[in-house]
Amino acid sequence: MGESIKGLKRTSGCGEIFESNVGEKVTIMGWVQRRRDLGGLIFVDLRDRSGIVQVIFGEEIDKEAFKKAESIRGEYVLAIEGEVTMRQSPNKDMPTGMIEVLGKSLRIVSEAETPPIYIKEDLDAAEHIRLKHRYLDLRRPDMQRNFIIRHKASKVVRDFLDENGFLEVETPMLTKSTPEGARDYLVPSRNYPGSFYALPQSPQLFKQLLMVSGFEKYFQIVKCFRDEDLRANRQPEFTQIDMEMSFIDVEDIIGLNEKLLQRLWKEVLDINVEIPFKRMTYKEVMDRYGSDKPDTRFGFELQDISSVVKDVEFKVFKDAIDNGGSVRAINAKGCASFGRKEIDKLGEFVKTFGAKGLAWIQLKEGEVKSPIAKFFTEEKLQEIINSLGGEDGDLLLIVADKASVVYKSLGELRLELARKLNLIGKDNKDLNFLWVTEFPLFEYDDEEERYVAKHHPFTMPMEEDIELLDTDRENARAKAYDIVLNGEEIGGGSIRIHDSAIQEKMFEALGFTKESAYEKFGFLLEAFKYGTPVHGGLAYGLDRLVMFLAGTDNIKDVIAFPKNQNAADPMTNAPGEVDNKQLNELAIDILKATETEEN
Amino acid sequence: MGESIKGLKRTSGCGEIFESNVGEKVTIMGWVQRRRDLGGLIFVDLRDRSGIVQVIFGEEIDKEAFKKAESIRGEYVLAIEGEVTMRQSPNKDMPTGMIEVLGKSLRIVSEAETPPIYIKEDLDAAEHIRLKHRYLDLRRPDMQRNFIIRHKASKVVRDFLDENGFLEVETPMLTKSTPEGARDYLVPSRNYPGSFYALPQSPQLFKQLLMVSGFEKYFQIVKCFRDEDLRANRQPEFTQIDMEMSFIDVEDIIGLNEKLLQRLWKEVLDINVEIPFKRMTYKEVMDRYGSDKPDTRFGFELQDISSVVKDVEFKVFKDAIDNGGSVRAINAKGCASFGRKEIDKLGEFVKTFGAKGLAWIQLKEGEVKSPIAKFFTEEKLQEIINSLGGEDGDLLLIVADKASVVYKSLGELRLELARKLNLIGKDNKDLNFLWVTEFPLFEYDDEEERYVAKHHPFTMPMEEDIELLDTDRENARAKAYDIVLNGEEIGGGSIRIHDSAIQEKMFEALGFTKESAYEKFGFLLEAFKYGTPVHGGLAYGLDRLVMFLAGTDNIKDVIAFPKNQNAADPMTNAPGEVDNKQLNELAIDILKATETEEN
Repeated sequence: MGESIKGLKRTSGCGEIFESNVGEKVTIMGWVQRRRDLGGLIFVDLRDRSGIVQVIFGEEIDKEAFKKAESIRGEYVLAIEGEVTMRQSPNKDMPTGMIEVLGKSLRIVSEAETPPIYIKEDLDAAEHIRLKHRYLDLRRPDMQRNFIIRHKASKVVRDFLDENGFLEVETPMLTKSTPEGARDYLVPSRNYPGSFYALPQSPQLFKQLLMVSGFEKYFQIVKCFRDEDLRANRQPEFTQIDMEMSFIDVEDIIGLNEKLLQRLWKEVLDINVEIPFKRMTYKEVMDRYGSDKPDTRFGFELQDISSVVKDVEFKVFKDAIDNGGSVRAINAKGCASFGRKEIDKLGEFVKTFGAKGLAWIQLKEGEVKSPIAKFFTEEKLQEIINSLGGEDGDLLLIVADKASVVYKSLGELRLELARKLNLIGKDNKDLNFLWVTEFPLFEYDDEEERYVAKHHPFTMPMEEDIELLDTDRENARAKAYDIVLNGEEIGGGSIRIHDSAIQEKMFEALGFTKESAYEKFGFLLEAFKYGTPVHGGLAYGLDRLVMFLAGTDNIKDVIAFPKNQNAADPMTNAPGEVDNKQLNELAIDILKATETEEN
Repeated sequence: MGESIKGLKRTSGCGEIFESNVGEKVTIMGWVQRRRDLGGLIFVDLRDRSGIVQVIFGEEIDKEAFKKAESIRGEYVLAIEGEVTMRQSPNKDMPTGMIEVLGKSLRIVSEAETPPIYIKEDLDAAEHIRLKHRYLDLRRPDMQRNFIIRHKASKVVRDFLDENGFLEVETPMLTKSTPEGARDYLVPSRNYPGSFYALPQSPQLFKQLLMVSGFEKYFQIVKCFRDEDLRANRQPEFTQIDMEMSFIDVEDIIGLNEKLLQRLWKEVLDINVEIPFKRMTYKEVMDRYGSDKPDTRFGFELQDISSVVKDVEFKVFKDAIDNGGSVRAINAKGCASFGRKEIDKLGEFVKTFGAKGLAWIQLKEGEVKSPIAKFFTEEKLQEIINSLGGEDGDLLLIVADKASVVYKSLGELRLELARKLNLIGKDNKDLNFLWVTEFPLFEYDDEEERYVAKHHPFTMPMEEDIELLDTDRENARAKAYDIVLNGEEIGGGSIRIHDSAIQEKMFEALGFTKESAYEKFGFLLEAFKYGTPVHGGLAYGLDRLVMFLAGTDNIKDVIAFPKNQNAADPMTNAPGEVDNKQLNELAIDILKATETEEN
């Protein structure tokens, strides 16, 4: 039976005992990292949240403790009273490696079976084992470090926003399903049989209502939910840093958030981030990087050679341009050394993004090699090379297609090149923050055959583009912005429409009738009747932000109890079956008896 | 159409302009609290989160602004540039009442219809109107003050716990239904048809797992959910301040939390709270106050007169004692003046709590009046009076019954007396913090005919009572504690069982087989196999705590978007109907087509 710690008071963390403590009596409590027997002594490495310290038990130190120590095994929980002494053979790899603790008394608080995973850094165990025994996975020091970082990050955000006059206001978790957006998680109502709450995909409507209420500066660190098929680094429940301000414009939000991000990196990692960040419009990032969240840590920018090749007879180029597309290229500087196989692989790669093929020109040892050379005059070929700044040693990679395909395939190709050349590996500690602004207000939804809101239906158009809502939706720009870090979107937001006339125009453009708009967003539109301030905001994905801070590329490393790819938790076996009584009370029935798989 | 604020930058809050700013140019933005026309001038009270300031528009101040100001109505949103000047007729009731702003330019950011409720302090509007137009209700300064208090309270808690080495760790919202406890809110799973997540009633199991993981000090301010019929001041979703610590005992948790509460009142309200708080055992508070959350701001304590009356022939008293009950009384000091009707009312009152009746002895003007006097000798009557410290002017109120009824009815009676005599009204600013300790480990569930855990099945028995788990469950005490403020439980917790042998005994006592215990709590019991620290914790109801800080007795005043008594939100109309497509994807069906009422 486990011993109590009655009468004992912990005096030190295991990782906090140093040379300056030599001669002191300490009481430490923690887990056995390792036990070794050597020359009639028992050496125990004791671990707690603060670190590890070596404890020695011996007949001559304390007979009773020594006797007891013989039963110790890994992961036992111990409470030890001892005396700090200099270590005979110091271990410079351990922060406490200069000292050790002479074990004068020992209580075995809890025994332990052999754990199914090792409690050590950088564990290479299968994910389902780690999730099933998450409480052991979380014992590993690198995991604990991640959650210390997460805690600090949330704290810094709250401190900063509090200092800047923001109020944290909690918005409801049990709210109404809005069919716009991703799939909702539903919660059946007991009071209203046949009715459902939805878990929020974001507090968007509520934070706008708080602006109508005159809260002026709102924020919240809040759980949000999306019932979507899980890609890597997506979780059904995730955490947003959500904020909204009144009486401001784009500049105010950008300025505030640059300071916030600067403070985050400084306080959490002691890294100085320079502000202001770079800014580019959506048009610029698409033209230069083929992506609205470009990784700007390296070059390989896209270049438009449509005007150079517009009059050639090469059908692939000609067709693309004639059909309203373009011909664009990347100059892969210094990549002429790629072999034929490698280049073919890049061709296969762009095809997965819809490109019909990848044309290339290799400038190697004074020669020009290219499967498409035959379609051009020598002068034209040289003109293409020159327009791309091609020099000996370069590899020019060209895609011709409609805009979306050209951007996507070349945008991904430049990332692929960077990975291939190790430009964005773990060694690259650059932090390229970038604001992307002036997003399109609409995007065309091929499936629904109508324009949908790129950001959301409450996004304010740029003042100079308001008239385009009727005439040129394709080119209407929004007061919307994303903050991108090293090619990942970490946050985004917009100024909202505060004027009912513009809001009506917007709904019209999105194909809503007045009635259908009211049906979906009635309470917000109703609220807007009673005096609405100019307002706007931004939301970050906290999980993603913490991934950057913790230096991990796995979202499960920064969520204490994450779900697996099937949105299940192998530890608790959630989701699970429930009693019929529970279903009856909710007036719901299971539609068909499908075998539920083991999760 | 609403004007933009382009080119303007707000310089001051409306409530932050004082004499020291006279002569300055200011740009202010806010809502029109009131507009008056007087002597060719237009006076506008402009309101924002910081307060209200008076603005004057006049032909001679600025012609254009004056012209525009003529269209202003209540709740319009304005942006005004102006100059601060001394006020000719100061208003000492307004913080900004010494000055006014000369309106030099005016933009009407948003017009407003006449709001359905007044935007003013202490509104006396029907609750459903306030909830339906919550965004307007939240505009009222007293409501905004409540949310500023709530924000501050959360901030202080986080600062304090951070300083004390606690990590805020987020636990899942989509988790597993545990049939123990209140009714769960369920969330159907799309990946596993027929399976459900449950929204957490508390993060209890997860926080204990974090202790197994070696996090040592965890906290979280977190939403919890209970699908219960709503009594006053209960909400389906509520917020807990949840904490857990390892390697500690009761004293550590109590000591830390006294400092936390002291800090809260100091930083939020600048009120000094003395620590340590009073402490009483469960036995003491039941005996003295008939309640485990006694209001100790006034007397009227219960007194046991069983031994005095045990040998009398009065059947009511005799039966109670013979059946294992007791006879207890309250000396309502100075209440002899109560008339017969008032006393009868008190009799009716105690009957609602199961008492068969209320015996009384009135000591008025030298006389002893009592309907039960005839059952006693004069000496016995005097002995009863003496034992209760009865003096002329007192009213002695007596209940004889089994313990639970005596406690409940007299406990409620003393509160009723205090309300009647206005001892605990709004004027009573006392803060009586009280720790109630040594709660019973079990309570007998008459319905289930078995002992159930009073706190929860993981609560540690007091060391000296461990053997009572087998022999005397009734009297086994737990290492459980509540913190009570002025008769309300604001938080509670316990030391948990960390030893599997004791845990098994506990489950046995609760009537679980090893299998059924594993079925329900398997993952926690599994976790406990791998080295478990001594641990314990506490959770506060944040909403309730903020009610105290804000001085309101309505929980809806401290939750931005609360639900009504039917767990519905009249503003968004949640819960609502959803598409069949959504239900199909979740493989659920609505059991019977009941008319859903309008919510």
